[in-house]
Amino acid sequence: MNKWTRKDLLGLEELTREEIEIILDTAASFKEVSARSVKKVPALRGMTIANLFLEPSTRTRISFELAAKRLSADILNIAPSASSISKGETVKDTARNFEAMKVDLMVVRHQSSGTPHLLAKNLSAGVINAGDGAHEHPTQGLLDLFTIREHKKKIDGLKVSIIGDIAFSRVARSNLWGLSKFGAKVTLCGPPTLMPRGVEQLGAKVTHSLEEAIQDADVLYLLRVQLERGSGKGLPSLREYVRLYGIDGERLKKANPDVLIMHPGPVNRGVELTSDVADGKHSVILDQVTNGIAVRMAVLYLLASVRGRNVKTTHS
Amino acid sequence: MNKWTRKDLLGLEELTREEIEIILDTAASFKEVSARSVKKVPALRGMTIANLFLEPSTRTRISFELAAKRLSADILNIAPSASSISKGETVKDTARNFEAMKVDLMVVRHQSSGTPHLLAKNLSAGVINAGDGAHEHPTQGLLDLFTIREHKKKIDGLKVSIIGDIAFSRVARSNLWGLSKFGAKVTLCGPPTLMPRGVEQLGAKVTHSLEEAIQDADVLYLLRVQLERGSGKGLPSLREYVRLYGIDGERLKKANPDVLIMHPGPVNRGVELTSDVADGKHSVILDQVTNGIAVRMAVLYLLASVRGRNVKTTHS
Amino acid sequence: MNKWTRKDLLGLEELTREEIEIILDTAASFKEVSARSVKKVPALRGMTIANLFLEPSTRTRISFELAAKRLSADILNIAPSASSISKGETVKDTARNFEAMKVDLMVVRHQSSGTPHLLAKNLSAGVINAGDGAHEHPTQGLLDLFTIREHKKKIDGLKVSIIGDIAFSRVARSNLWGLSKFGAKVTLCGPPTLMPRGVEQLGAKVTHSLEEAIQDADVLYLLRVQLERGSGKGLPSLREYVRLYGIDGERLKKANPDVLIMHPGPVNRGVELTSDVADGKHSVILDQVTNGIAVRMAVLYLLASVRGRNVKTTHS
Repeated sequence: MNKWTRKDLLGLEELTREEIEIILDTAASFKEVSARSVKKVPALRGMTIANLFLEPSTRTRISFELAAKRLSADILNIAPSASSISKGETVKDTARNFEAMKVDLMVVRHQSSGTPHLLAKNLSAGVINAGDGAHEHPTQGLLDLFTIREHKKKIDGLKVSIIGDIAFSRVARSNLWGLSKFGAKVTLCGPPTLMPRGVEQLGAKVTHSLEEAIQDADVLYLLRVQLERGSGKGLPSLREYVRLYGIDGERLKKANPDVLIMHPGPVNRGVELTSDVADGKHSVILDQVTNGIAVRMAVLYLLASVRGRNVKTTHS
Repeated sequence: MNKWTRKDLLGLEELTREEIEIILDTAASFKEVSARSVKKVPALRGMTIANLFLEPSTRTRISFELAAKRLSADILNIAPSASSISKGETVKDTARNFEAMKVDLMVVRHQSSGTPHLLAKNLSAGVINAGDGAHEHPTQGLLDLFTIREHKKKIDGLKVSIIGDIAFSRVARSNLWGLSKFGAKVTLCGPPTLMPRGVEQLGAKVTHSLEEAIQDADVLYLLRVQLERGSGKGLPSLREYVRLYGIDGERLKKANPDVLIMHPGPVNRGVELTSDVADGKHSVILDQVTNGIAVRMAVLYLLASVRGRNVKTTHS
Repeated sequence: MNKWTRKDLLGLEELTREEIEIILDTAASFKEVSARSVKKVPALRGMTIANLFLEPSTRTRISFELAAKRLSADILNIAPSASSISKGETVKDTARNFEAMKVDLMVVRHQSSGTPHLLAKNLSAGVINAGDGAHEHPTQGLLDLFTIREHKKKIDGLKVSIIGDIAFSRVARSNLWGLSKFGAKVTLCGPPTLMPRGVEQLGAKVTHSLEEAIQDADVLYLLRVQLERGSGKGLPSLREYVRLYGIDGERLKKANPDVLIMHPGPVNRGVELTSDVADGKHSVILDQVTNGIAVRMAVLYLLASVRGRNVKTTHS
């Protein structure tokens, strides 16, 4: 029996280091499943999981879908356009309907911060935050921790620089929470207009100089530039951004010889980093993708075990 | 062996009371499956079911999808935009192609009345009408009967008032057929412009007064106002509709103390009914959603048993 | 153990006659599975297959989806709009991400010729070309060969006339390669503007006269007129096309008494052929659809067996 007791995964802010370690250790044991020829275990057979993505996404949705399938669960994909929400129904009503259909776990992405929390409070089903506004994206944070720990054998004391659009990034926020709990030293680097106020109070160092962020770092974590949002919104011109914060082979020479290059994907080649860096020996970007499945299998498995205990209690 | 012999489910009009009872009793035995932690039985393993929804829908599609998965069938979801129909193919050709792919059962929603019947006539595969124009929506009618029977322990002699846009409602039509066969007394209530002519000949009482519909009723069944259709088309203004036919806590006080509030969903809160009524103790709206899965499992199971006999016959 | 050694299926051009025969023979053994009541074998349990359709399609996608499900594989459907490609990612990056998620086989449709080849070169996952531009559509060619062989008991020496928009047809191209390798005599028939230059060098006879194409033919293969492309692009007016190249009952009288009518679907009734011909005794169009599943099961199975050997090697 594991010691996991939460019915929901809403953010890394609320988790203890011990809870995060339970997830990472469970993920380590599931990672092997995807490396097999028969990538399937019967752990969640007969459980129903809903992917409720009310903001477009492919990778995270697919990663959860594969995680669910490799655990033998049944999975429903609900796209924003397909949902009854387009008929004016509230998210809460949509979610309560899924619950009435005996959905066990709901993976929720929503443009508004706090939506998964609202649902978690109102549902007996487990809720997994798959990204809420600029707030948190906890499974991304977890897979990043997993990948760092895998390559560096520890997280404590590591210097991690997160570079880019910090203010609007739920990825940065979840990483900051997670890394801090493990005793890593986080530096946030980006244009002043994309740096949230008071972020130093969370224990991070702030710099606007890429050179400073690169120096001595064990991990360079590049955030995705949201090109599709269009310019403005505090973003400098793309050309200016690349000049100030883009990482190419030349800049990488100033980094530690064993520095890790990380990125949540999809990469804008030639923007956050050049192709030689994205595909180079420091890059663990595809490892992050691989580990995403293992981490999501672990999260689904742990929440399902709590859910299973509840469902059984109800009927015994 | 059950006594079910039809290869298709096209409407409640053509079913005998006995046939409906077979479905409801089968559904009762399947309801327990969704309450388990392992919500899966192998009954339809290796069968292929196609969800051919040529009119947008989420809930009904998902309900069929979950019903199929909990029976271990393979299910295909075909959306209107994805279908070859957008390349100018007729529905019949699309359906015959699925049949050539050895699809066993086709769940069909279409904006034209009679499309499922046309397909049923031309296919050896079983066809389930999941809503055809303003004609019928038999699985909705069945889950409503199931829910009423579950709460009232009988249907005979009950007074059921169906309120709203009767003329354009396949839900009203399927309920009217089903309830009548069970000896319930149906009252249809709505604005004169939304009341089909000659509906009294089907054995229903007609009123335009909500007060009359509420009085003595055992069940108040509120139809969804199709806001997305826009106004006009005989619909009074929304404000006027709410004033005349919306149910709030005040109006509910005049109803029987054990009245059931039903709605096919999704609810327009503040239109057909207020939130205190939708979420109140009389409401069985979420029970309807839960029972929808059980009823659809029963229908898939019964039709598949006929199909299985046919397929085996063909090959032995 | 079969003798299949390729990790990818990119086109019929590169396959030997012997390799094609392995596929057709494997398909013959899988055809029986879809005729059963329980249409499922555990052959690919725990394998992950991605349907990456970057050009809209229903039939081919569904055919691969059913083939995968009947082999018990897990399948992901990726639509063009849903893909990260809409966020500016390259196809190659998208594919490498799927590979990082341990997808075993990728079924790829793309509007550009050569995309599947590019991916095959860069991935350890197996790649199946499901149609690349006007280049090849090998599983269509294979199912056509299978259907001809099934009805005629041989392919050698048969006279096959392919009629329509040859220049833009990947179906024509794959059939031409496949049929030639089996010693069939191919005649290409269509308007001069839709006939690619130098096609005679591939061993086909070219004619612009339908009468000539019909005479003595064992198979009349009608290509789909891409109505949705609009007129122009070398296509005569629809009326003119039907007058010159459409097949009706009258014209069919001049054909061999045992001629086969084939079409890749979806049929434009009244254009390439009239309904009496499409549904008549010579038509094997729905057999093609049925055989498509068997052929795709065979292709998935054979590539997966190579993939399985590779995956096991990596981990032992």
